[in-house]
Amino acid sequence: MTYSVAVAGASGYAGGELLRLLAGHPEFEVRTVTGHSSAGRPLIESQPHLRSLAHLTLQATTPEVLDGHDIVFFALPHGASGELTAQLTNVRLAVDCGADHRLTSSADWAKFYGGEHHEAWTYGVPELIVAANGAASSLTKQRDALIGATRIAAPGCNASTVAMSLAPGIAAGVIEATDIVSVLAVGPSGAGKAAKTHLLGAELMGTANPYAVGGTHRHIPEIQQALRGAGASEEPTISFTPVLVPMSRGILATSTAKLVPGTTAAEVRAAWEAAYADEAFVHVLPEGVFPRTADTLGANTCLIGIAVDEAVGRVIVVAALDNLAKGTAGAAIQSANIALGLPEITGLSVDGVAP
Amino acid sequence: MTYSVAVAGASGYAGGELLRLLAGHPEFEVRTVTGHSSAGRPLIESQPHLRSLAHLTLQATTPEVLDGHDIVFFALPHGASGELTAQLTNVRLAVDCGADHRLTSSADWAKFYGGEHHEAWTYGVPELIVAANGAASSLTKQRDALIGATRIAAPGCNASTVAMSLAPGIAAGVIEATDIVSVLAVGPSGAGKAAKTHLLGAELMGTANPYAVGGTHRHIPEIQQALRGAGASEEPTISFTPVLVPMSRGILATSTAKLVPGTTAAEVRAAWEAAYADEAFVHVLPEGVFPRTADTLGANTCLIGIAVDEAVGRVIVVAALDNLAKGTAGAAIQSANIALGLPEITGLSVDGVAP
Amino acid sequence: MTYSVAVAGASGYAGGELLRLLAGHPEFEVRTVTGHSSAGRPLIESQPHLRSLAHLTLQATTPEVLDGHDIVFFALPHGASGELTAQLTNVRLAVDCGADHRLTSSADWAKFYGGEHHEAWTYGVPELIVAANGAASSLTKQRDALIGATRIAAPGCNASTVAMSLAPGIAAGVIEATDIVSVLAVGPSGAGKAAKTHLLGAELMGTANPYAVGGTHRHIPEIQQALRGAGASEEPTISFTPVLVPMSRGILATSTAKLVPGTTAAEVRAAWEAAYADEAFVHVLPEGVFPRTADTLGANTCLIGIAVDEAVGRVIVVAALDNLAKGTAGAAIQSANIALGLPEITGLSVDGVAP
Amino acid sequence: MTYSVAVAGASGYAGGELLRLLAGHPEFEVRTVTGHSSAGRPLIESQPHLRSLAHLTLQATTPEVLDGHDIVFFALPHGASGELTAQLTNVRLAVDCGADHRLTSSADWAKFYGGEHHEAWTYGVPELIVAANGAASSLTKQRDALIGATRIAAPGCNASTVAMSLAPGIAAGVIEATDIVSVLAVGPSGAGKAAKTHLLGAELMGTANPYAVGGTHRHIPEIQQALRGAGASEEPTISFTPVLVPMSRGILATSTAKLVPGTTAAEVRAAWEAAYADEAFVHVLPEGVFPRTADTLGANTCLIGIAVDEAVGRVIVVAALDNLAKGTAGAAIQSANIALGLPEITGLSVDGVAP
Repeated sequence: MTYSVAVAGASGYAGGELLRLLAGHPEFEVRTVTGHSSAGRPLIESQPHLRSLAHLTLQATTPEVLDGHDIVFFALPHGASGELTAQLTNVRLAVDCGADHRLTSSADWAKFYGGEHHEAWTYGVPELIVAANGAASSLTKQRDALIGATRIAAPGCNASTVAMSLAPGIAAGVIEATDIVSVLAVGPSGAGKAAKTHLLGAELMGTANPYAVGGTHRHIPEIQQALRGAGASEEPTISFTPVLVPMSRGILATSTAKLVPGTTAAEVRAAWEAAYADEAFVHVLPEGVFPRTADTLGANTCLIGIAVDEAVGRVIVVAALDNLAKGTAGAAIQSANIALGLPEITGLSVDGVAP
Repeated sequence: MTYSVAVAGASGYAGGELLRLLAGHPEFEVRTVTGHSSAGRPLIESQPHLRSLAHLTLQATTPEVLDGHDIVFFALPHGASGELTAQLTNVRLAVDCGADHRLTSSADWAKFYGGEHHEAWTYGVPELIVAANGAASSLTKQRDALIGATRIAAPGCNASTVAMSLAPGIAAGVIEATDIVSVLAVGPSGAGKAAKTHLLGAELMGTANPYAVGGTHRHIPEIQQALRGAGASEEPTISFTPVLVPMSRGILATSTAKLVPGTTAAEVRAAWEAAYADEAFVHVLPEGVFPRTADTLGANTCLIGIAVDEAVGRVIVVAALDNLAKGTAGAAIQSANIALGLPEITGLSVDGVAP
Repeated sequence: MTYSVAVAGASGYAGGELLRLLAGHPEFEVRTVTGHSSAGRPLIESQPHLRSLAHLTLQATTPEVLDGHDIVFFALPHGASGELTAQLTNVRLAVDCGADHRLTSSADWAKFYGGEHHEAWTYGVPELIVAANGAASSLTKQRDALIGATRIAAPGCNASTVAMSLAPGIAAGVIEATDIVSVLAVGPSGAGKAAKTHLLGAELMGTANPYAVGGTHRHIPEIQQALRGAGASEEPTISFTPVLVPMSRGILATSTAKLVPGTTAAEVRAAWEAAYADEAFVHVLPEGVFPRTADTLGANTCLIGIAVDEAVGRVIVVAALDNLAKGTAGAAIQSANIALGLPEITGLSVDGVAP
Repeated sequence: MTYSVAVAGASGYAGGELLRLLAGHPEFEVRTVTGHSSAGRPLIESQPHLRSLAHLTLQATTPEVLDGHDIVFFALPHGASGELTAQLTNVRLAVDCGADHRLTSSADWAKFYGGEHHEAWTYGVPELIVAANGAASSLTKQRDALIGATRIAAPGCNASTVAMSLAPGIAAGVIEATDIVSVLAVGPSGAGKAAKTHLLGAELMGTANPYAVGGTHRHIPEIQQALRGAGASEEPTISFTPVLVPMSRGILATSTAKLVPGTTAAEVRAAWEAAYADEAFVHVLPEGVFPRTADTLGANTCLIGIAVDEAVGRVIVVAALDNLAKGTAGAAIQSANIALGLPEITGLSVDGVAP
C-alpha cells in the first residue's frame, strides 16, 4: 500500500532532506508540505534541488492541514512540534525531528531547553543497543521498541552519532561510561536555515569555529540518556565540544572513553563488531581504517573506526555520518519503515556521494 | 532481465560514480571491476563510500577480464580505451567515458589530443538537439541515435554542459553560433584522482584557479561538433575558460552568445523551453531564476537559467550540473538505458543532495 | 607626521579590512571607530582578528563623532555616506568605500541604485589609465588626479578588477570596448556582513551560485565609466556575470574583448606590460601563466594573465585580487597615501597569504 | 644592522611562509633560497604569492650554498636537516623548522620517527612556561633559553598549540597532566606540498578526515616533553587525534584535562591569564568566548578560550593558530628575534586576515 505523507517545516534543511528521501521511497507519497513564512509559495522556491516535487505548494503549518495523513514528519524548530502534535487526532504515525519528544527527564529538559516538557516518544535510533531487564545485551536494540510505534522522536544528529559510537563498548563492559570526551567536526546545515550573522558563508569558510564549549550543548542529556539505556553501570558523563568546519553537511565525532582495565584490544574490537555485524547502515571499519564524512554524504550510513591507545588507556572511536541524512531524516524514515513493518532499508541508500 | 556489467577504471572518480549509480540500478548488476595499480585490492579501499559494493575486488584491466559482459563501462584516462575496446569480441554494449571515441574529426583529435584517432561512437547526450536533414528541429534529439546503439561515447562534462546550454538557441536561430563566450566554475573531481601538486587541497581551497586559458581546452572541438550538429549555420567559435573553484564536484557554465537581431526575449525563452519541455533531466528555470551546482549534486539533472541582456545584445545562459553524474556517469547510464530499450530514467535521480 | 583617522562602519567586512591595514600603517593612527547596532561595544567583539586594536570601542556613526579627524574612511552601506559626508566641516581627507560618490552620471545612478545622486569624488584606482585631452596615453594614470585630492571614492571591487583588466588594451587600441564579456568568481565577503539566508555557509559551501545575471549588477556603469575614461572610442558595453564561489575572499575576473583586427599577440602583450611596468601593485604575468586569487589574499596586489585566442578573435584577460584589500580597503589607503604625498606603498603589502 | 638570511626548502609551504614573513622583516634580508627539484628555477614559479621576492632564484640545497649567511632557516622534510646542519661552519644562527632537533629523547625519536637521532636544539616556543629548578613558575618562560641561542628547533605546529594550551594549568597545578585528550581540526598545508592522493582537493573538500588515530602522531612525544618541562608532577599522557578539515591553513585544538579536585573556575582562569598577561602573541579570551582559526590567519597569534565543565570535572581549552605562521614560520622568526636581541615582535603581525 502507499502511505500518504505530510511534512511540516518543509522549507528548512531537515525538511528538505526528508523530502529528498521520501521522493525516492516506493511506499510513501508526499501529499502535503507546510512552511511558515514561505506558506503559499511553490516548494521548489525553497528547495530548488527537489525537481521531482516541483508540483507541490507549501501550505500553512496547522493541525487541520496535517491531520488525516497516514504519516506526518515534523521538521520544526525545537518547541514548535510539542503543542502541534497534541492536536492531531487522525495520524497513524507521527515522527518528530525536533527535540520536543526526545528526553524522558523533565529536569534535563528544563536545564537544557526550558519551556514546557512534552512526553518522550519512541527514540528513533534502531541500531542503538538497549539494556534488557537491566542487563545490556548486544542483541537487544532500540529497533524492537520501534516495531508498531505510532509516535517516534528522531534523534539529535550529534547525539545519535556519539551514542552509536559508544553504546557497544558500554553494553559489553569494555569501556567506562564516565569521563567520556567527544569533539565533533560538524557542518553548519545542522544549525538550520535561519539567517544569522555567525552562520554566514564568510564567517565559516576557511575556518574552524567552536561553539557550546564547556558542557552547554543540548545534545548532552540525550547522549547520557542513550548510554544509560545501553546499560551503563554508572551515570554517564561526557565532555562534549562541537566545532563548525567548512563543509555544508557531515559530522565527524571523535569520542574517547576509558578502557576498562584488563580489557584487550581484541575484546574491544569484538564488542563493536558484534554490535553492528548485522546492521545495514552502521559499519565498523577494519583495524587502522577511519571514516570520512564524505563517504556518508546523502546516505543513511554511519561509519565507525576504532583504535585502542594503550599508552593512555583509552579507546578512540571515530564516527562519520551525514547530519541531515542518517543524523536526522534518514533515521526518521528508517524508524518509520520499522514502525510500519516495511523492510527497514526501503528508500534509503547505504552508498555516499563522494568525492 | 538483468544485464551483467563490468566497469574498467573502477578506482577513479568517474569509475566510482558509475558504480554508485549502477549499484542503485534495478536492471544492471556489477559483476566485475578493474583497476590499474589497485588491481587485486578490495574495491572498498579505493571507493570507501560504496558500502553496497564492498564485496567486489578490483581485477586487472584486460580484454579477457572485460569480455563476455553484457555491458562494459570504461572510465580510463584518455587514450587508454581506444585500443582496449578494439579487442572486445563479445560485449553487447560498450560505453566509453573517456574522450577516445567522441570526436569525428581526426584533425581536431590531432590538434587537441594527439596520438591515434579512433572512430567516433554514438554521442551520449540524449537531450542534445540534432539537425535532421540539414535543418535543425527542436524535436529531433540525439536520443534517437542512441536507440539500439552498441557503442556509446559519453560526453566530456564541460562540453555537454555548454552544448546543452546553447543548442536550443542555435537550433531555433535566435542566437549566433560564432563568438560564443563560456566561462566555467568547475570542481577538481573532473581532473581525476592522480596525485598532482596543483590539485592538492591546499592549492585549491579558498582560491579560484583558471586553467587552459586561451583556447587550449580539449572540450572545445567537442562543443563545436555538438553545436554544428545542432544546426549552426556558421562554424561555431567559442572562447572557453574553465576556473577551478573550491567544491569537489560541479560545473557552473556561464555562456553568452549574440542575440540574432530582431529576436525578442520571449522568443529566446520559448526556444529553450520548447527544447526541454519534455525532458526529465534538463530543466529551464523561470525568468529571473538561475541555477546553483549544489542543486544538482549527485543527480542526473542539468538546470538552466536564461537572461537576455539587451544592452549588450547577448543571451546569457547559466547551466549547472554535477560533472561526475549528469556530466559523465549519469549520461553514460542514461544513454545505456536508451540503447537497451529501458525506461530512460531507470536508476537515475532528478533530485540533488543539497545543501 | 601622524594623521588622525576615523573609520565609519568599522564593524563590517570592509571596515575590518580598513582597520587591519591601518593598524600596520606607520603614518596613520586610528583614533575613532563607529558602528550602528554595535555602537558602545568593544571593537574586538565584531573584529576578533584585530588584536592590535582591542583597546577601541565602537561609537555611533554621527557627524560629531567623525568631524575633526585628519582622515575619515567610510565603509557604510550604499546610500548612507552621501548625506553624512556633506555634514563634515573639518576633515582634510574623506575616503568613501561605498558607491555614493563613484558615478558621474545621474542617469546611471538612478538606473542602478536609485535615490539621491551625490557628486562624484576622485576615483580611487591609481593604476587606471585615463585619457589626456581626449587621447589615451599609457603614461597618464588616475594617480595624477589623486595627488592632493581631499575627497576620494574608493572603487567597487568587481568594477576596478575589470577596469584594470581592460583599460590597457582599450587605451592602446588593441581591443574593442564593445561586446566585452566578463564572468567573475567572487567570495561572499563582498556581499557584506548582514545576515541573509542566501549568504549562509550551508548555501554557499560546495556550490557555485550566480547572481545579478543579465546586466543588472551595479558595477556595470562604473566599469563603463572607467573604460570610457581610458579612451574608448565607442561607448563600452559589457556582459557582466558574477558567480559566488566557496572562498571567503577573492575575485577572479575572466574578461574577454574583441581583438582589433590586424593586431598581433605581441602587440597585445606589450600594451599591458607597458601599462603596468612601473606599478608596485599590478603585475602582468608571463605568457602562459594565469593568476590565482589565493596569491593576492590580504595583499594590495592585482595579478593579470593575458592570452590571445586567435581562433575566436578575442583577448582573454584573467585578473585576480582580494576584494576587501586591493578591491576596497587597500585601494582606499593607497589612494589616501597619494593624496597626502606619502609613498604610495606605505602600509601596504604586495605579498599574499598563501596557501 | 641587517642580517643575511638563507632559506633552505624555499619551494614548500613552510618555506613560503618563512619568506613571506622575512620579506616584511626590517632587519633580515633574504639573500639565498634553495630547493630540490625546483633548483635553478625562479622562486616566483613555486611561490607566486611572493611578488616582493620575484628577483630570487632557487639554488641547490647544499652546505656550500647555505654556509656563510648570518641566519639559515631550514624548512626541509623531517630527517633532511640533521645531516645538513652538521656541515655548516659559519652560520651564526640556524633555525630548523623540521623535527630533527626537537626531541631530547632518543627513545622517542626511534619510536615515532626512526633513523638517526640528532641533538635537541633550543625549543622555539618563547611563551612556553618552563619549570625553574624543578618548580614550575608562570614567570619562567622558554624565552629565557632563547636569548643568545645559536641553534633553534622551531616547534611542531600541533605540538606547540597543545603545549601552549595546557602548560599554564599544569604549571599552576590546576589541571592534571595525565589523561589529557586533544582533538584538532587542521588544514592540509601542514602536510606539505608533496603530491599525494589523499591530500587532493577532491579528497578534502566538503569532508572531515581523521588521521594518525590511536596514539601514533609524531607530535605526541613533543607535547609530552613540553608539558614535562612545564612542571608536570606526573608523566604526561595524551590522547591525540588530528582531523583534516577543508581550510588550507589553521589549527583548532580542543584539549581537555582533568581539573585538580578543589580547584575553582576562577583559579583556573587566573592560571592562564597570569601566564599570558604580558604576551604579545598569545591571548586568553574572555569568559564564554572561544577562538576561530580565521582570526589568526597569517598572524603570529595564538588565541585561547577556556571553560570549566564542572559536571565532568574537566577544563576545556580551545586554542587557534595558523599552522604555517605562529605554528611554524612565525615561531621561527620570533625565536630568531629573541636569539639576536631584536624586539621580539619585529616583522610579525598580531592581526589575522579575516574574514
